[in-house]
Amino acid sequence: VTTLPEPLLRLIDSLKGLPGIGPRSAERIALHLVQTDPQTSATLAEAAVQARAAIQACERCGGLTESQPCQICDDPRRDTAILCVVERPEDVLALEKSRAFTGLYHVLGGKLSPMNGVGPEDLRIGQLETRLKQEAISEVIIALGTDVEGDATSFYLAKSLAAHGITVSRIAFGLPAGAGLEFADEVTLSRAMEGRREMEK
Amino acid sequence: VTTLPEPLLRLIDSLKGLPGIGPRSAERIALHLVQTDPQTSATLAEAAVQARAAIQACERCGGLTESQPCQICDDPRRDTAILCVVERPEDVLALEKSRAFTGLYHVLGGKLSPMNGVGPEDLRIGQLETRLKQEAISEVIIALGTDVEGDATSFYLAKSLAAHGITVSRIAFGLPAGAGLEFADEVTLSRAMEGRREMEK
Repeated sequence: VTTLPEPLLRLIDSLKGLPGIGPRSAERIALHLVQTDPQTSATLAEAAVQARAAIQACERCGGLTESQPCQICDDPRRDTAILCVVERPEDVLALEKSRAFTGLYHVLGGKLSPMNGVGPEDLRIGQLETRLKQEAISEVIIALGTDVEGDATSFYLAKSLAAHGITVSRIAFGLPAGAGLEFADEVTLSRAMEGRREMEK
Repeated sequence: VTTLPEPLLRLIDSLKGLPGIGPRSAERIALHLVQTDPQTSATLAEAAVQARAAIQACERCGGLTESQPCQICDDPRRDTAILCVVERPEDVLALEKSRAFTGLYHVLGGKLSPMNGVGPEDLRIGQLETRLKQEAISEVIIALGTDVEGDATSFYLAKSLAAHGITVSRIAFGLPAGAGLEFADEVTLSRAMEGRREMEK
């Protein structure tokens, strides 16, 4: 069996490290890149390097930005009294797309995970405490996932933020929009039950 | 709604053009690239540019190679009397992986498609004719797909190669390995019927 040329193998290897790209898609993409006009791979290469160089973490919220502070922190129309705590910069984008939140964000940069050696000092919890002292924040909404680590981190935050005398809430969990009961697992169903609200008459 | 920083948008745009990468995966990959260590995106960028520069078409068979002629054309262990005609360089790789063929290849670079203005002069058919004159080839195996254009190209080749006094065959079509009849469409089934072979007793 003939092996692929070395530069192609190296490109496939680089691509395989990307999220959602398996060995087959990596090969397909690499074969595409070496066969289209040279400009295509040059443009992609340039875009990757430039984006990596230009994008940094917002010093205030931890979101992704080109400038300090980020567009959201800098937007006078945002409600500066409500802070939404998320795990990753991606979560900010997801919430922004939903248009469900108009306050400010705070990216933790992870979840507590004693098993993996991730403690409070590894997350941006100190920065969160500082913000609560310096900014006029009245409510913190915790928007972490509903797995064990998300739960643990949420409970830890709720406890440690209690001293600040602000409202600490957690986003609701329940049935996803458009899905029937038959697709929901037990945990989702029991959380949906717990979170039930009285309907208007 | 906040839009993403411009360099990130440009990277997403570049990634969206790749085969199998939709808007969501492009966003996911871009967000990964701007958040991992700078070396990751630099390595990928370098690999893409280097591979594009280093990989060329083999002047003999049309496959992908770093050197002239390619590894396969240059391999003394290959059976130089049998030539397998494929559409794209990718098809060479697929056949090599199957280990089902030990002869040489000839990449057409496409299929005849009058609708899209692709005629015989747009494919590497002239080069194929030249090879048949210069090399001691006794059989040409046509390994093109089974769609309308693949059929038309195969018939065209069979006719135009007849003058060379060599065997021209086409790879078999039938049920894919491991699949039951219930998953095969009508055309596959009728081709499988046509191609039936007597079993050994």
